[in-house]
Amino acid sequence: MNRQQLIHNIQKKKSVLCVGLDTDIQKIPAHLRDHEDPIFAFNKEIVDSTADFAVAYKPNIAFYEAEGTKGWESLHKIITYLRENYPDIFLIADAKRGDIGNTAERYAQTFYHTYQFHSVTLSPYMGKDSIEPFLRDQDKWAIVLGLTSNQGALDVQMLSLGKTYNNQHIYQKVMQTVASWGTTANTMFVVGATNSEQLADIRSQFPEHFFLIPGVGAQGGDLNEVLHHTFVKNEGLVLINSSRGILYAANDQNFAMAARKEAQKLQEVMSTFF
Amino acid sequence: MNRQQLIHNIQKKKSVLCVGLDTDIQKIPAHLRDHEDPIFAFNKEIVDSTADFAVAYKPNIAFYEAEGTKGWESLHKIITYLRENYPDIFLIADAKRGDIGNTAERYAQTFYHTYQFHSVTLSPYMGKDSIEPFLRDQDKWAIVLGLTSNQGALDVQMLSLGKTYNNQHIYQKVMQTVASWGTTANTMFVVGATNSEQLADIRSQFPEHFFLIPGVGAQGGDLNEVLHHTFVKNEGLVLINSSRGILYAANDQNFAMAARKEAQKLQEVMSTFF
Repeated sequence: MNRQQLIHNIQKKKSVLCVGLDTDIQKIPAHLRDHEDPIFAFNKEIVDSTADFAVAYKPNIAFYEAEGTKGWESLHKIITYLRENYPDIFLIADAKRGDIGNTAERYAQTFYHTYQFHSVTLSPYMGKDSIEPFLRDQDKWAIVLGLTSNQGALDVQMLSLGKTYNNQHIYQKVMQTVASWGTTANTMFVVGATNSEQLADIRSQFPEHFFLIPGVGAQGGDLNEVLHHTFVKNEGLVLINSSRGILYAANDQNFAMAARKEAQKLQEVMSTFF
Repeated sequence: MNRQQLIHNIQKKKSVLCVGLDTDIQKIPAHLRDHEDPIFAFNKEIVDSTADFAVAYKPNIAFYEAEGTKGWESLHKIITYLRENYPDIFLIADAKRGDIGNTAERYAQTFYHTYQFHSVTLSPYMGKDSIEPFLRDQDKWAIVLGLTSNQGALDVQMLSLGKTYNNQHIYQKVMQTVASWGTTANTMFVVGATNSEQLADIRSQFPEHFFLIPGVGAQGGDLNEVLHHTFVKNEGLVLINSSRGILYAANDQNFAMAARKEAQKLQEVMSTFF
């Protein structure tokens, strides 16, 4: 999916909502557990009930990997289902991959071709040759970690680089470097949502890049404030993720309707920014 | 596998050889391609022909993921085969994972329990909560990226941190921080093999940690020189990986014997350091 198509969908739905499919077999409602593929059954209902309000879905690959080959089959089924029934939806593999060139090519093949995602989240620690294979395919996107919203962001990303680099934090230098490898049509950044000053600062440095922002909901970011600092008038240029707040809004027969209400609530806040 | 057992196997075999199973279906000999599981058939012959000289095997997960669920089945089969037939072999999932705490727990579950590896390679960019879930299991190891041997190492790892941190490179500070989270009995580092001064320097800073050293062979490191700078008398405390040089030593009916000869050649060099 190209930038223009993604922005068009955002404008059409007045939404920048990304639903994170961190589907935990332990947490899905009891009545679905006898289904032959409970993870797919759950995801399908979540997708069908929230797609009116979302522009992107983001399976967290760890949750599928942990179930072995069955998990990968569930993943393949939900991606196929999304592509066939909701062709306007942007699909993100939340995989945080990062390895040398010939290995990165394999990961690109996996997520862009075997599983037909539009984009993959990536870790920048190994540098250009670990990212570049994800920038070669038409209308596919590398979504590279910039600043994350977890406590561990302080350990590496927030270290200061000293005078040679104008006392920048590591994440700032990393984002500048990564931005120079691709374009605003094939590179996005993961930008955490715990500190609004930082968000505003990052947006001012990268006015035209899409940001994937996790951490609204369970991870503690306030949606209005996050949008205030990052939303770009008309085009949006953010994808705001919510996972647990939507998936587990209820834990009974009504989980899909509860998820829909949560998604709608978020979209209503988002719509005021257009 | 605990530190004592691993060192015991190293001493017994006079070897620190790790065979990287970066098995590329395009590169395996033609006569194996009609096998119902060509990747497993190839790996099994490689393992059987090289296990006399190796102490560790390291499947590169990208190569299995790219084949979809079939690839994960092949991976599961070779790990089961290794555990049942070569219980002394140390098993490394070369996965370079790194994500927030609840997701890292899933990845640990995947590689430690679903697939029964002894260890996983990890990226440190997201900090402590992305590594810590891999340090909780008895006799399991987190193998964290320090300095890598690819060109892209210059982009992030080699940046200087300035005076506040004594002009350390990022990778040095990262390794110090990571070392403080675990012990020398559950933490190893990936240390690249392109610059021997750096290797010697890293060894002097981390005299008791195991290093996983890729890059001997196809990636250009010279084995003797690498061992000279990193091998610790008697215990070894390195695992030196070779992938393509062994796997694709020949491309015909004799590939397994050719792989055996390559592995033996490397082990003979290694044996002189004991």
